[in-house]
Amino acid sequence: MEMELDEKLEELRELYEKKEFSRLKGLLSELNPADIAAVLDELPDNQRLLMFRLLSKEEAAETFVELDSDNQEALIHAFSDTELREVLDELYIDDAVDVIEEMPATVVKRILQNTDKQTRDSINALLKYPEDSAGSIMTPEFVDLKKNMTVEDAFKRIRRTGVDKETIYTCYVCDNSRHLIGVTTVKELLLHDYEDVIEDFMETNTISLNTLDDQELATQLFDKYNFLALPVVDMEQRLVGIITVDDAIDVIQEENTEDIQKMNAMLPTEKTYLKTTVFETWKSRFPWLLLLMVSATFTGSIITGFEDKLASLTILTAFIPMLMDTGGNSGGQASVTVIRAMSLGEVDFSDFLKVIWKELRVGFVCGSSLAAVNFVKIWLVDRTLFRNDEVTLIVDLVICLTLIIEIVFAKFIGCSLPMLAKKIGFDPAVMSSPFITTIVDAVSLLLYFGIATALIPSLH
Amino acid sequence: MEMELDEKLEELRELYEKKEFSRLKGLLSELNPADIAAVLDELPDNQRLLMFRLLSKEEAAETFVELDSDNQEALIHAFSDTELREVLDELYIDDAVDVIEEMPATVVKRILQNTDKQTRDSINALLKYPEDSAGSIMTPEFVDLKKNMTVEDAFKRIRRTGVDKETIYTCYVCDNSRHLIGVTTVKELLLHDYEDVIEDFMETNTISLNTLDDQELATQLFDKYNFLALPVVDMEQRLVGIITVDDAIDVIQEENTEDIQKMNAMLPTEKTYLKTTVFETWKSRFPWLLLLMVSATFTGSIITGFEDKLASLTILTAFIPMLMDTGGNSGGQASVTVIRAMSLGEVDFSDFLKVIWKELRVGFVCGSSLAAVNFVKIWLVDRTLFRNDEVTLIVDLVICLTLIIEIVFAKFIGCSLPMLAKKIGFDPAVMSSPFITTIVDAVSLLLYFGIATALIPSLH
Repeated sequence: MEMELDEKLEELRELYEKKEFSRLKGLLSELNPADIAAVLDELPDNQRLLMFRLLSKEEAAETFVELDSDNQEALIHAFSDTELREVLDELYIDDAVDVIEEMPATVVKRILQNTDKQTRDSINALLKYPEDSAGSIMTPEFVDLKKNMTVEDAFKRIRRTGVDKETIYTCYVCDNSRHLIGVTTVKELLLHDYEDVIEDFMETNTISLNTLDDQELATQLFDKYNFLALPVVDMEQRLVGIITVDDAIDVIQEENTEDIQKMNAMLPTEKTYLKTTVFETWKSRFPWLLLLMVSATFTGSIITGFEDKLASLTILTAFIPMLMDTGGNSGGQASVTVIRAMSLGEVDFSDFLKVIWKELRVGFVCGSSLAAVNFVKIWLVDRTLFRNDEVTLIVDLVICLTLIIEIVFAKFIGCSLPMLAKKIGFDPAVMSSPFITTIVDAVSLLLYFGIATALIPSLH
Repeated sequence: MEMELDEKLEELRELYEKKEFSRLKGLLSELNPADIAAVLDELPDNQRLLMFRLLSKEEAAETFVELDSDNQEALIHAFSDTELREVLDELYIDDAVDVIEEMPATVVKRILQNTDKQTRDSINALLKYPEDSAGSIMTPEFVDLKKNMTVEDAFKRIRRTGVDKETIYTCYVCDNSRHLIGVTTVKELLLHDYEDVIEDFMETNTISLNTLDDQELATQLFDKYNFLALPVVDMEQRLVGIITVDDAIDVIQEENTEDIQKMNAMLPTEKTYLKTTVFETWKSRFPWLLLLMVSATFTGSIITGFEDKLASLTILTAFIPMLMDTGGNSGGQASVTVIRAMSLGEVDFSDFLKVIWKELRVGFVCGSSLAAVNFVKIWLVDRTLFRNDEVTLIVDLVICLTLIIEIVFAKFIGCSLPMLAKKIGFDPAVMSSPFITTIVDAVSLLLYFGIATALIPSLH
């Protein structure tokens, strides 16, 4: 299937170069807007407009939405007012808002001037919702029915108004003050007789979001309930919009990418990897690298402070990387697991003690098993094989004891910091591996040197 | 909304304890199966069956699918054959397969004995597809139409057969040998006249998957094209099933969780965090910790090998953690970014050189800027403020030069290893931060000691 698509796109480029516009038009109508957009994104500005003009009205709008925002902006500049209006008329309102959010003020002004008052009001209303709120990703275009309608009435209404709706399959039943009182689906309607009244079979246990809810809650509900659309109500419980499942998928992928970036010491970037410039990539990576670099110098000064004792028993230095890495990895495992569980809605702050109790036990089991392996390895390899006389039983014990305690500590810090961060309103994803590693590194070294000083007579 | 739900669930438990079964039944019919399942999962085995029996047939099946597999198994054991058959009759085939995949052989046998031959054959066919293939997540139940049907015919067929289909909204048009020749939607059907013939308006540019394609490709297509369902064809291009968007969301979240686990040195676990036992969590975390611990001992031996020189210029030791951490973080950033871009389908092996060229430049810019900050910091803080005489200009230069080279190297390794891993058929997510860190640690130390030996006269 992918092969076939590549061939078609190749043909598209050839027809364009040969200026065979009528065949080109035919081929374009067979392609999916997302694929046409991928071709258009690669064309130079002047050619893009030319090919765009070959698209049918509806296809043009669908393709427009999928373009890079830079290219959307260039097209808007090149459009006549009539062309701009034609594209805008065909856009769903939430898509129009997505486009507008990326545009400079002058372009936004021109866009709003070329929409009718009702659309303009809707767009302005959506623009006001906070970023990442349910309101900011919903669309105000949905099928609304009345409870006393029959199935036949409902179908008439869908046929009349459905063409402009992003989804018609979930229909919302509202009372006269626009309160959501029930939901039904086209499937239900199709399986009932024409005379049946909606009130008699609609689902009244409606699950809805508030406009100010976090978009993450929307993704959790889609994941849990398998909906095709979710209703969004305002403070007065009036239905003001819906979120469709395709937008939910976009949000899920965006949020996952963001979490993964934050978990790995990067500021989120919005563009795809290959479209991000070197400078933009640097901007997303430098701040955390700098912060972590500065923190790591404290770890360095812990070592410096212990330098004299290390010089008197140099073997201790050899185990520093192993202890630091293992502590960091253990803490990272715990933090990432808890962050993920919170973002999937599996864990919340009420589970705080349960999570800590679990991680303490996991830490103890991981620590003990690793310590056991390490104890034997040090004895057999470092002591017996390499005949290193500095490796005494007590040194071996110091290392293994440090390992157990640091892993338990790492698991504790790793699971509790993200939960506390979320509780006080920070993004838990930031409390992840690199950050935890830095704390655990310092604590591990202090532990190591403390235990060594306490147990090894020659260091007293 | 969440509050309201919690109240209902609380009421459910109360009614159950008071044994007010008829009111309980009423309340159950108002709740979503996913929520009922959450309550049932918390009940003891004997009580679960009791409450389960209060559910309507359809609701019972939908709830059953959402239960933990342990509890599904316990229920199946408690069911009479009739009860089991009733639940199985209502299940969609892909859900039945999901249930079966988690059951021990004896239970599978009993399930298959209680399904009719056609269902059994379908289930067996699906069970044969490799894990994580498109075939393994599809359902063979879809609406199929013929091209010469009118809209009226189509609606008749949907009304007659649609009740058993997971989705009716996307309809597939096949020829007599079951080849997929077009697609249409209920929305299109509703917007056309009853006499219109499907062939005249169906979409012929169908995008489909092969049964053996990776499920990740399915998620990429859903993300790109905003479909509600994707058709899956066999080797002979015959339509054998569809993947629905709700299953795609489950797969997206599973794959993301898996990637995040692998990126952070864990083996994937299937259960949710709180349901995973301490031992299971240990099993997923111990292997990587062990492997990384052993690798880190090599880093340790690099330090040991340089011990004499470190003893003669002890200030060098103080910068080891900073250099190791920064290298690891830099490499981790690159690897995670590339792994994510690959899993979203933004980058593939054909971009190999482009990616490397980009990361080398990002590495140089990140390295230089961090080195500059570090150079000034060392001079002002360590040299001037703390009056450490060991900090000479040449020592400062050694550290900063190491920083630049190690970061460029870390970015290079970080982006290339995941791409190479994928090319040769390994999971790129494993080539992530912890793994990269271990390599970069060793290389950073070798670089550091090498540059120091070359440039600092007292170490010659």
